[in-house]
Amino acid sequence: AASSPPLPAAVTCTAPVNMAVIKYWGKRDNELILPINSSLSVTLHQDQLKATTTVAVSRAFQEDRLWLNGEEADAGQPRLQACLREVRRLARKRRSGAEDADAPGLSYKVHVASENNFPTAAGLASSAAGYACLVSALARLYGVQGELSAVARRGSGSACRSMLGGFVQWQRGERADGEDSVALQVAPETHWPELRVLVLVVSAEKKPVGSTAGMQTSVETSPLLKHRAEALVPERVALMARHIRERDFEAFGQLAMRDSNQFHATCLDTFPPIFYLNEVSRRIIALVHRYNGHHGPQPHPTTPAPCPVPRGLRWGVLARSRDGALPPPTPPLCPQPGPGPQLLDDPSQHLLGPDGLPLFPAAAAPWPV
Amino acid sequence: AASSPPLPAAVTCTAPVNMAVIKYWGKRDNELILPINSSLSVTLHQDQLKATTTVAVSRAFQEDRLWLNGEEADAGQPRLQACLREVRRLARKRRSGAEDADAPGLSYKVHVASENNFPTAAGLASSAAGYACLVSALARLYGVQGELSAVARRGSGSACRSMLGGFVQWQRGERADGEDSVALQVAPETHWPELRVLVLVVSAEKKPVGSTAGMQTSVETSPLLKHRAEALVPERVALMARHIRERDFEAFGQLAMRDSNQFHATCLDTFPPIFYLNEVSRRIIALVHRYNGHHGPQPHPTTPAPCPVPRGLRWGVLARSRDGALPPPTPPLCPQPGPGPQLLDDPSQHLLGPDGLPLFPAAAAPWPV
Repeated sequence: AASSPPLPAAVTCTAPVNMAVIKYWGKRDNELILPINSSLSVTLHQDQLKATTTVAVSRAFQEDRLWLNGEEADAGQPRLQACLREVRRLARKRRSGAEDADAPGLSYKVHVASENNFPTAAGLASSAAGYACLVSALARLYGVQGELSAVARRGSGSACRSMLGGFVQWQRGERADGEDSVALQVAPETHWPELRVLVLVVSAEKKPVGSTAGMQTSVETSPLLKHRAEALVPERVALMARHIRERDFEAFGQLAMRDSNQFHATCLDTFPPIFYLNEVSRRIIALVHRYNGHHGPQPHPTTPAPCPVPRGLRWGVLARSRDGALPPPTPPLCPQPGPGPQLLDDPSQHLLGPDGLPLFPAAAAPWPV
Repeated sequence: AASSPPLPAAVTCTAPVNMAVIKYWGKRDNELILPINSSLSVTLHQDQLKATTTVAVSRAFQEDRLWLNGEEADAGQPRLQACLREVRRLARKRRSGAEDADAPGLSYKVHVASENNFPTAAGLASSAAGYACLVSALARLYGVQGELSAVARRGSGSACRSMLGGFVQWQRGERADGEDSVALQVAPETHWPELRVLVLVVSAEKKPVGSTAGMQTSVETSPLLKHRAEALVPERVALMARHIRERDFEAFGQLAMRDSNQFHATCLDTFPPIFYLNEVSRRIIALVHRYNGHHGPQPHPTTPAPCPVPRGLRWGVLARSRDGALPPPTPPLCPQPGPGPQLLDDPSQHLLGPDGLPLFPAAAAPWPV
């Protein structure tokens, strides 16, 4: 037993997807991921949509490694490394003085395995959930507490909003170093539990233009985006926060629709134009307007799922199971507001085995209990 | 012969379609049809697309009557009556003092027959060509000359731009009475004869939302449209006029694309949102960007039609023939800049017979030559 390597330290977390009701589109600093405007989102309950991430560190690891949905990916990517660096910096700060700044573990290589239970890059904020999850697990591993949304922001802008539950505002901030560009909770998930978000996946394909490249082109070419960010969004964020505090469903829903449309409008004003709405999205939008015109934009009743899906909706969500198979389309999801990242205490939930390699899809040695 | 009614006085004109390269969308006065911003267009040659209108007046006519593409329509509609009233007012002003203000003809009822050689209301500016044609024919009939674009504007805003050939700016104007909201020629059609406009009809259906209702909703609900009209368009119009004067095809084309996209963006920012682009339009936009990326956005060669159509384009224009049949799709049209409204001198071209009734589709008595 003396020659066998020590067990790695491992932590597994889950983290939620968030749906912006006032949209983020455009960075004022590409390196630090600082937005041109504040945004506001609903954190969706993890019963339906979530990322799960295991982070392990060990003296025995030779290099940083990363597996996404079971496939090995580049662990050297700058955004992942920025998150690692920032969490370690906070850990050193915490330990400084009292202990050795080079405390064991901080110089070790990490292994990361992450998976989503929904299609990656289909516009379901997979990177938001993924980076919120990574940062939560790393922070736990290194014993870092407190404000971590600015670290998650370095992975993916909207990931900072997935660091909190309920209704979350990502504050634009004014500082050049980004320290004030953080997530703040407008209201906890318990404030409006009867709210439902109907999630309809209209395409499981990757977006034609990724968010990072798309928003950079928009910032460079769209005069309407500039006006939106400077003159329109500040008022909209304040208004939306009020609608949430007052649980005014009609005003909340209408402003969310208007803001989503305006985001898509700025994409169209981009040169070359970016189209994220497809024929199915447009039909859903028309259906919602007809439905509201007929029934009035009433809040969904406070019944649990299955939520009331307007007739005519036959779309399903393609949920990715652990073995990578695509199950047949499932009914639309309708999560309620949910909590922020969660720690999974049970080591049997780890995605990495005691050897630091993915447990799935290859069945590997379980963790000793 | 003493008992037979006198021959009506009749005039037939043709008028062109125009394609806006800086778009008009939104009125500041719905009654006078005054725009929230200036716009700029290319008048398309009538060899490909045109409206033809015959106006006849006779003491024997009992009431105003109107036929559009062979179908009788409501001659009492306010916009047609506004054009009639305005032309008669100008005629009276012209005749005042010298002659009787109630000169023969001005109190007579009118018969109007108009037809387009392209689908009505498919986004091809049919009402622009139609009202420009009506006003030109009425003015000729009543002997009115000079500035008539403000009269055509009362029929359809963009009709004022079809009153001139070549490159035409519709000036927003400042006056409340609209007297300065007129069309001005930036350059005649002879200035840039090698320019070609590729016309691809992607749908022959009526637009889902008409321009009048759509732009009113946009003015009421889109903050991006307000910003566009106030802060962005004035500069764009000046810039576009310069590109035209300098025959700078690349700058001209790119600004036209950006402005078209921005117009569609404001439609999307409208609540409820308006979609005028369909899947085919989006594919054409993507194709044009790929084509320009590959070949560079070069001006078309100065060859006459058939113009060079990018491979992959298989759309046809549905041209409506006089007997109302829809011929099989024809190759895309590519008109060059063309002249303004034209008078047809040959009475055999009249759409109304000597009895004041449509000659087509019912074959009727020809005009005595």
